[in-house]
Amino acid sequence: MAKIADKYYISDPWNIIEQDFNPEYSQVSESIFSLGNEFMGVRGYFEEGYTGKSLIGNYFNGIYEASPIPPSGYKGIIDKTEFIVNAVDWLYLRIEVDGECVDLNQSHFKDFYRSLNLQTGMLNRSYTWILKDGRELRLEFERFVSMKNAHMAGQKISMTPLNFSGEIMVTAGLDFTQIHHMVGKNLWNITRTNDGDRWLSIQADTLTTNQSLYSSCYFEGNPEKEVGILEEKKVLKQLTFKLEEQKATILKRVVCNLSKNDNYEGDSDTFNVQCMEAERSLFQYTYEQIKEETTAWWEESWKGSDIAIDGDELNQQGIRYCIFQMHQTYHGAQKGSVIGAKGLTGEAYSGNTFWDTETYCLPFYIFHNLEAAKQLLQFRYLTLHEAKLRAKALDCKGAFYPIATISGRECCSLWQHASLQLQASTAVAYGIWHYAMITKDDDFVLETGLPILIEVSRMLATRGDWSEDQSSFGYYGVMGPDEFQMMVNNNCYTNYMGKFTLEYTLDVLDKLKQKKKTAYQEFLKSHDIEDEEIQKWSIIAKEMFIPYKEENKIFEQHEGYFKLPNIDIDKIPVEDFPLYHHWSYDRIYRNNMIKQPDVLMMMLLLNSSFTIEQVRNNYEYYEPRCIHESSLSPSVHSILAVQLKKHEEAYKFFEFATRMDLDNYNRNTCEGLHITSIAAAWMNIVYGFGGMRSDCDQLSFSPSIPKKWGGYSFRIHYQNDILQVSVDKEKAYFQSMHGTELNILVYGQVVVIKDQKIEVEILQEWRG
Amino acid sequence: MAKIADKYYISDPWNIIEQDFNPEYSQVSESIFSLGNEFMGVRGYFEEGYTGKSLIGNYFNGIYEASPIPPSGYKGIIDKTEFIVNAVDWLYLRIEVDGECVDLNQSHFKDFYRSLNLQTGMLNRSYTWILKDGRELRLEFERFVSMKNAHMAGQKISMTPLNFSGEIMVTAGLDFTQIHHMVGKNLWNITRTNDGDRWLSIQADTLTTNQSLYSSCYFEGNPEKEVGILEEKKVLKQLTFKLEEQKATILKRVVCNLSKNDNYEGDSDTFNVQCMEAERSLFQYTYEQIKEETTAWWEESWKGSDIAIDGDELNQQGIRYCIFQMHQTYHGAQKGSVIGAKGLTGEAYSGNTFWDTETYCLPFYIFHNLEAAKQLLQFRYLTLHEAKLRAKALDCKGAFYPIATISGRECCSLWQHASLQLQASTAVAYGIWHYAMITKDDDFVLETGLPILIEVSRMLATRGDWSEDQSSFGYYGVMGPDEFQMMVNNNCYTNYMGKFTLEYTLDVLDKLKQKKKTAYQEFLKSHDIEDEEIQKWSIIAKEMFIPYKEENKIFEQHEGYFKLPNIDIDKIPVEDFPLYHHWSYDRIYRNNMIKQPDVLMMMLLLNSSFTIEQVRNNYEYYEPRCIHESSLSPSVHSILAVQLKKHEEAYKFFEFATRMDLDNYNRNTCEGLHITSIAAAWMNIVYGFGGMRSDCDQLSFSPSIPKKWGGYSFRIHYQNDILQVSVDKEKAYFQSMHGTELNILVYGQVVVIKDQKIEVEILQEWRG
Repeated sequence: MAKIADKYYISDPWNIIEQDFNPEYSQVSESIFSLGNEFMGVRGYFEEGYTGKSLIGNYFNGIYEASPIPPSGYKGIIDKTEFIVNAVDWLYLRIEVDGECVDLNQSHFKDFYRSLNLQTGMLNRSYTWILKDGRELRLEFERFVSMKNAHMAGQKISMTPLNFSGEIMVTAGLDFTQIHHMVGKNLWNITRTNDGDRWLSIQADTLTTNQSLYSSCYFEGNPEKEVGILEEKKVLKQLTFKLEEQKATILKRVVCNLSKNDNYEGDSDTFNVQCMEAERSLFQYTYEQIKEETTAWWEESWKGSDIAIDGDELNQQGIRYCIFQMHQTYHGAQKGSVIGAKGLTGEAYSGNTFWDTETYCLPFYIFHNLEAAKQLLQFRYLTLHEAKLRAKALDCKGAFYPIATISGRECCSLWQHASLQLQASTAVAYGIWHYAMITKDDDFVLETGLPILIEVSRMLATRGDWSEDQSSFGYYGVMGPDEFQMMVNNNCYTNYMGKFTLEYTLDVLDKLKQKKKTAYQEFLKSHDIEDEEIQKWSIIAKEMFIPYKEENKIFEQHEGYFKLPNIDIDKIPVEDFPLYHHWSYDRIYRNNMIKQPDVLMMMLLLNSSFTIEQVRNNYEYYEPRCIHESSLSPSVHSILAVQLKKHEEAYKFFEFATRMDLDNYNRNTCEGLHITSIAAAWMNIVYGFGGMRSDCDQLSFSPSIPKKWGGYSFRIHYQNDILQVSVDKEKAYFQSMHGTELNILVYGQVVVIKDQKIEVEILQEWRG
Repeated sequence: MAKIADKYYISDPWNIIEQDFNPEYSQVSESIFSLGNEFMGVRGYFEEGYTGKSLIGNYFNGIYEASPIPPSGYKGIIDKTEFIVNAVDWLYLRIEVDGECVDLNQSHFKDFYRSLNLQTGMLNRSYTWILKDGRELRLEFERFVSMKNAHMAGQKISMTPLNFSGEIMVTAGLDFTQIHHMVGKNLWNITRTNDGDRWLSIQADTLTTNQSLYSSCYFEGNPEKEVGILEEKKVLKQLTFKLEEQKATILKRVVCNLSKNDNYEGDSDTFNVQCMEAERSLFQYTYEQIKEETTAWWEESWKGSDIAIDGDELNQQGIRYCIFQMHQTYHGAQKGSVIGAKGLTGEAYSGNTFWDTETYCLPFYIFHNLEAAKQLLQFRYLTLHEAKLRAKALDCKGAFYPIATISGRECCSLWQHASLQLQASTAVAYGIWHYAMITKDDDFVLETGLPILIEVSRMLATRGDWSEDQSSFGYYGVMGPDEFQMMVNNNCYTNYMGKFTLEYTLDVLDKLKQKKKTAYQEFLKSHDIEDEEIQKWSIIAKEMFIPYKEENKIFEQHEGYFKLPNIDIDKIPVEDFPLYHHWSYDRIYRNNMIKQPDVLMMMLLLNSSFTIEQVRNNYEYYEPRCIHESSLSPSVHSILAVQLKKHEEAYKFFEFATRMDLDNYNRNTCEGLHITSIAAAWMNIVYGFGGMRSDCDQLSFSPSIPKKWGGYSFRIHYQNDILQVSVDKEKAYFQSMHGTELNILVYGQVVVIKDQKIEVEILQEWRG
């Protein structure tokens, strides 16, 4: 936990501000100032060109390339991996005055200022360019991606000569020449380019995955001259403007990007027609109009999701940045989208989604954007077929969900993770259960959830096995959430979640049987389920081995864990971290050190199933053994620490949650944002300090307040209303924004909330 | 164990005979008719060219290439592997009559006959070539590699026109154009070619490993015309002969090959000078002279190592073939040679040597060729530096011997084997101990053994760890000999052999301390050993955890093994084998099925340390769980089954031991011979039926006789004499060939052997 903040941005409740450009931070800022709208993501690079360190990154959800992996010769080990591919730079600009081009790596400049307005989604940047001959040109940039229509985006440049009048040439276009940095080459074949009066379009296909991307733009402004230029994989307009001293000349562009990926309903022809239509209708939009729609979207969004913190501007800025990124990354914009571990902000983790989606991210959407939550689960339904193929490759029946994926196919080339980690599959079941628990959306469960549950249960029944004496069922050769215990038997989390999944499946089946006998029979028939199979699941669930020591109420992380050599993690030299880079690979796996919560993760996900004594004993046993080498780990510990009223410890774990990327704690923000860690930061406040629990019939809260805060409030969508929870040093206040009557538990007592604020005193023990 | 013989060769006590060529077996025969002399190996391909399926393979011990492995980014996982490289074809011939070339894939022929004479080492082949116009030419080939001077070899062709007289053109040369089949390309750079009257030479370097190979030859015969031809990577002589009807024309060649590998003492210049000298002295040798030396070598060799079986010609042929291959593969010819898993007979296993060398092969040499046994151990001393580097890469002190190697560096690209298997290191210690036990060679132990033992003990002390309660020491995250239990804790074999190694090291140190106080002190100083370290080893050895259940006297293969899901191996469908190809990789590792002996291996290596009850209980427990997917497995079981007087079972396991390759039981003999399995076949008779034990102070025997045999005899070198053991249905006979007085145990009783045959009755229970 020796993580140290690297403060660079200016503190502000609603803005991320960079004053005076420091090239050392250029790539960190590219990540920090990333914009996205689930469909597309664009890093905060300098669109006017920059010869310093930069990763010009543009990513489109579900648009990926594939690369072969040297075949292992073993069954179930993948021989191909997929990764999100760096795509068209639709902000491309070059600004030239009398043959001199601006480039912040070479040019003189002053008054640099960049700010991302979290309230509106606008990214603004400005500076004064000092030309070699002393002439000064004030440049102001604005960009945004539309949150209303995810295909649209806008860019604005304002050019004001401070001490001269003259001509300026702006070359603006759509650039498909970017390389994918991890692969080291460009991965696009251009199939079509077109241009007309003030507009450009370009279309390209991925090399091997049969996907297409179309990008078009329309320029608003009054150039003196316009020349179309076609370069390799690039379409450009050379726009010449006459500038007048002290007068701003403005160029805007409206961008429309379309993609054809695996989930596109139609063929290439359909897509081409759609692109043509987009080309024709591009003129209908104006920059200001889509900007207005976007700021309106954000305004509405903040109404239901803002977290306000009183007396802690850094965390205030931090948590709003996190909420902003959650909305940017995903909001149910298109079918088949995923939440990559880095969102759409970089190439790291290949744009792959992990089981973090259901365990860390889904709660945010369940309580802010049900459509998005549903879409997330729909992705697993859409890719059920791939999960079934994967199960087959692993000699299992049913469906085995990939540990890392973009298309539904397993992309993790390390077999020890891809073949041994069952938590992606049980997390999907957990996600369905969690969603259904809050929404009571029975139709969804029947149509989308149950087919998944059946196949995951089938996998669970065939992947596990009976102990030698046939007395208990369990999972052998698995890796639980804690990736520092590689290939173990009866991992507690895996067994527990396996049992949970089977029981939930049986429960859903049973309810269906009770309520809709015919539908039930039809379902069994169409899914080829015999009573015998259901019976088997029931026995397995009943006999599932849960390693647990009654005398101290501690769950054993896996069979044999308690006997493992002990390691004093505080004695590991700081320079040994991250251990993956400094320790012999096998050495990591030979002691009781853990990387991230495992038993404790189970205790968070199904918190209400455990007594406070169990939570305490397990927390106190496992926490000292955890090195938190996963960025998700501290928040989980923080939430449980609050529950145990270990307020200082809880705050210590929380400390960098909201500002993980802003303060570059892991020193790798340059690669992209830690999106799922950002989700955990939200949980840390709502589930942690707010003490919310959503894993039982009634939503409950046990609000606490960190010592350093004057107060805080958060809002969640619940039962078609917005529930506002405010906490100050003395009291917690609950209010239903639209007046719906909401039954909740506060400190275990039923409280009925309406449109009037209800006060509950914060007990002394809950004051941090 | 569903292995079925594929009979092809004709049964004969001293010859391997192929009558009538079946192209289906061409590559199997190439392996079967391989010749070798430790320095070089040549597959039994048709030297006159053959366009059918063929792997022209020529391998030189210690001459390897390296290829990079995609970097994993993890410490201790190798990024380069080394493999023996296919080298010069020094038998190259083309035979042409009036523009027509012989090629057994295209030409008509009759009376094909090939035989390998195990008594003399001569490989002969003959057939009558029927030319398109009906002319018939009788061709007879002979080849051998010298066992006296490993650099030399000979080839003879006899050409007899049966119904015509005329001209024949023989193109003969040295050909470096062969590709390495697994890599798919040629890996040689030619540095020099030369030729003169009736001689040729060529020299080449490996592409990346700085090794050189020189090949030269001299032709004996009387061609009418001789033309030198230089092709790419090839030097040739076109020799024209006048043939006379019914008269044999003979061409012989003497070959000299030299290599410069890692162990070459000298630089390139030294090597070049050596090659020039070889070129000059080539004429001094004659074909017949080196042939005579070789047959004499074999005659002498058989005197001390023959095994005769009465009434079982197939096994008689089989075991002699095995003994022949053991001598061919290794006989102490040059420093730094290794025994590849396939010897020098194919590309499979990359010419790498495994821990089989010390555990399966070394006993043969200890009892037949002490110089060879010593050389084998010297290889580990020579490569101690590499083992120390490997230990460092694995975050251990001391030396960690590679699981697969050719140069001393780890070549196994599967980290789960390379990083988790400690048995290569403990096998080296065991080998030293075994050699010393029989030879009492204290000087060797002090000079070569002890430095190794110290470094292996250091590794053992740092690779292992203390259990959580500090009560016992053990190895965590290991793979024992049984490769179907991948990453386990406290593997019994590993712990037991670790304890053994530490105790032996302490024992050797203690003896040195008692006998040579000064030498002891000097040794400690020069190896930087403190008393504290020795003390630590002693504690570790004492507290080593040996998983054992006293109530049934069964050692647990590893902690938790007894609880693993049971699998009825008899119910696995035949088509699922080999499991590595048909089962999901991870599935193999999730049950109590074992691939090869693990606890039983320990019981074989240190047999005298266990009671017969322990051997029985463990054998009866583990044997039914073993699928024998290693070719080494059945012999180990057979030896222990004899000990348990399970004679039928013992014979069942023995059945294919001697003829594993001759009858192509695994259907992969085409890739090369199973050399270490061949070593196990020898053990199966001597340690199995002969009941020899060499792991205690006195050599002992408990002879038994398989029901199917009339009798058998074997010879071993022991205490500078040859001990002959003969067994018939009634009695066992012991005799010291040179009359040395030898004290041995027979059925546990001391027997003194001299030059007269001593008879001991075979008890009823030992009759199969």
